[in-house]
Amino acid sequence: MYRKSIETLSPYIPGFQPAMDGTVIKINSNENPYPPSPKVKELLGGFDFRQLRYYPDATSQPLRELIGAQHGLSSKQVLCGNGSDEVISLIFKVFFEEGDTIATPYPTYTFYKSVADIINVGVAFVDTAEDFAIDLQGLVNTGAKGIFIANPNAQTGRLLPLQRIEELLNNYSGLVVIDEAYIDFAGQESSACHLLGTYSNLIVLRTFSKSYSLCGIRVGFCLADESLIQAMDKCRDSYNVNHLSQVIAAAAFRDREYLEATVKRVVDTRDMLADELRNLGFTVYPSEANFLLCQPHGRSASDIYDYLKAQQIYVRHFDSPRLSDKLRIAIGTEQEVEILLRHLREYAGSDPI
Amino acid sequence: MYRKSIETLSPYIPGFQPAMDGTVIKINSNENPYPPSPKVKELLGGFDFRQLRYYPDATSQPLRELIGAQHGLSSKQVLCGNGSDEVISLIFKVFFEEGDTIATPYPTYTFYKSVADIINVGVAFVDTAEDFAIDLQGLVNTGAKGIFIANPNAQTGRLLPLQRIEELLNNYSGLVVIDEAYIDFAGQESSACHLLGTYSNLIVLRTFSKSYSLCGIRVGFCLADESLIQAMDKCRDSYNVNHLSQVIAAAAFRDREYLEATVKRVVDTRDMLADELRNLGFTVYPSEANFLLCQPHGRSASDIYDYLKAQQIYVRHFDSPRLSDKLRIAIGTEQEVEILLRHLREYAGSDPI
Repeated sequence: MYRKSIETLSPYIPGFQPAMDGTVIKINSNENPYPPSPKVKELLGGFDFRQLRYYPDATSQPLRELIGAQHGLSSKQVLCGNGSDEVISLIFKVFFEEGDTIATPYPTYTFYKSVADIINVGVAFVDTAEDFAIDLQGLVNTGAKGIFIANPNAQTGRLLPLQRIEELLNNYSGLVVIDEAYIDFAGQESSACHLLGTYSNLIVLRTFSKSYSLCGIRVGFCLADESLIQAMDKCRDSYNVNHLSQVIAAAAFRDREYLEATVKRVVDTRDMLADELRNLGFTVYPSEANFLLCQPHGRSASDIYDYLKAQQIYVRHFDSPRLSDKLRIAIGTEQEVEILLRHLREYAGSDPI
Repeated sequence: MYRKSIETLSPYIPGFQPAMDGTVIKINSNENPYPPSPKVKELLGGFDFRQLRYYPDATSQPLRELIGAQHGLSSKQVLCGNGSDEVISLIFKVFFEEGDTIATPYPTYTFYKSVADIINVGVAFVDTAEDFAIDLQGLVNTGAKGIFIANPNAQTGRLLPLQRIEELLNNYSGLVVIDEAYIDFAGQESSACHLLGTYSNLIVLRTFSKSYSLCGIRVGFCLADESLIQAMDKCRDSYNVNHLSQVIAAAAFRDREYLEATVKRVVDTRDMLADELRNLGFTVYPSEANFLLCQPHGRSASDIYDYLKAQQIYVRHFDSPRLSDKLRIAIGTEQEVEILLRHLREYAGSDPI
């Protein structure tokens, strides 16, 4: 009954969601440990539920305007989606068809391949260096029709400097998608948004899930040349972002002060945690995101994962090449990180981990 | 840059959304005139905004279980989506590919064609009879790989009896999608859900937008054989229904009493309005939905549309074959319908409309 390509699909596997009974430390899905802006609480408190009987704004226009203005762009250069996952799916639907190939580093966000597989678009993975540096020339050399780069990169947290992205755009005329889900933890100066005026083959992806602490509302957006946004607008579902998510996202987006304070807190904790993990004996890869990829040497990553899980601490372990000997740890609150470190010290004993 | 098929696309055109300043009567998008269940208000009042920092349940499992139980089905026969539009897009992605054809009556919900066009799936429109009865044999005769029927049908409100759907399923082995967005206004006994145990090529679509008054949250779902749901689950975006929409939908779904009372109120008003429109001189097509398709004879539909618009009453006028001489009027509150009728009587004067 269904398309042949579906049969062999391996779907995207989300991070395990433990029952949240207050005693669990959940640092496995790169969620933000702090609540969303108090403006969201205020908004929900005053929200008139009767409005839900109406269709939402079909184009998320007020949100597009807010986002555009913040980036010095027109609202016509912004598109909002049901999480950045919907925007990624839409990019595949609009720009690629069966038989095309996209190139992306390995490792990276696994969802790109999940989406490509469904529509029989090939994925050329280009291995990152030993230190997970992205091989840009390798990506170009694949001859792929488009290049997807998560920056900072998923799983590794490594940041590709803006200058390197500009070099890529000067050497490559296919579609370049820079997925900046974690960029707020790296700093706006590293954002490819600065290149949007110059390169019309660039799409920059963002999300409310990470720095805004709003995974639950599923709002992502992308910034690109007006002609690309127009094509994507034609192909999205008509009312793709629900009303509550639109207004919650707008309230959180306006609260720049809270955003900056939360990001700073996460970044400070990240840098402290990285130092402590190194003291314990881990190799910690330099991360500009809200998580750390680290490698133990005296113990196996999966043993540490199991040990932490038994203590109700959920980190992420990928059973994939180059990652299975490592752990990905999202940055929790200061208190959560203290508890994590205490358990790791207990586990390590007097040996390096 | 984008796929050739995108260039010539005509996107789905949603009903005009007037600014809602309280003086407007908006009966152009088949929204429910009554608010959602008071349980939704209660839920929002007690909602802890801090939960939004977590990803939602990736499979909408609690909602699937509720819906399954109500229909005497397993949760594995249920899939939830970001509005039934996402479910429709997903059906196309999973079951059809470039070069395939689907068949659907004309007129019907225009979104099927919007989605098909994007992926180069053909749409064979089979004209309905003078009275908008659906030509089932005509649909089968197209040789299409799948048949989409909105029941009650969009734009016309006409119901296809369950027995006829069963005859179709006995004569056709392709995919049959019955879109029951409006079925609650027709009665559960007419639902194709009763056939799900017998036919594994059947998908029944539902939505929270109409009878539950929850257009704003974008939740739709479908019911089908487990094997079809499994294939669709592989291809959807991982967190396709946001957290608030999941819990709001569940709260509204549980309140069966409110649902029944609201549906009864809309149906009673519909039947009253149909009589009054006939008294005014309209031909009113029999509708089992929350709207009426009606045809004036002394005046043009678009003149009446303009006149009502000038009075801040928004009905729907389609500039399409067989519909341009008619108006589609959603059922408002009793009071809104009184105001509509008063204006129509004034407009008609002593002549039949």
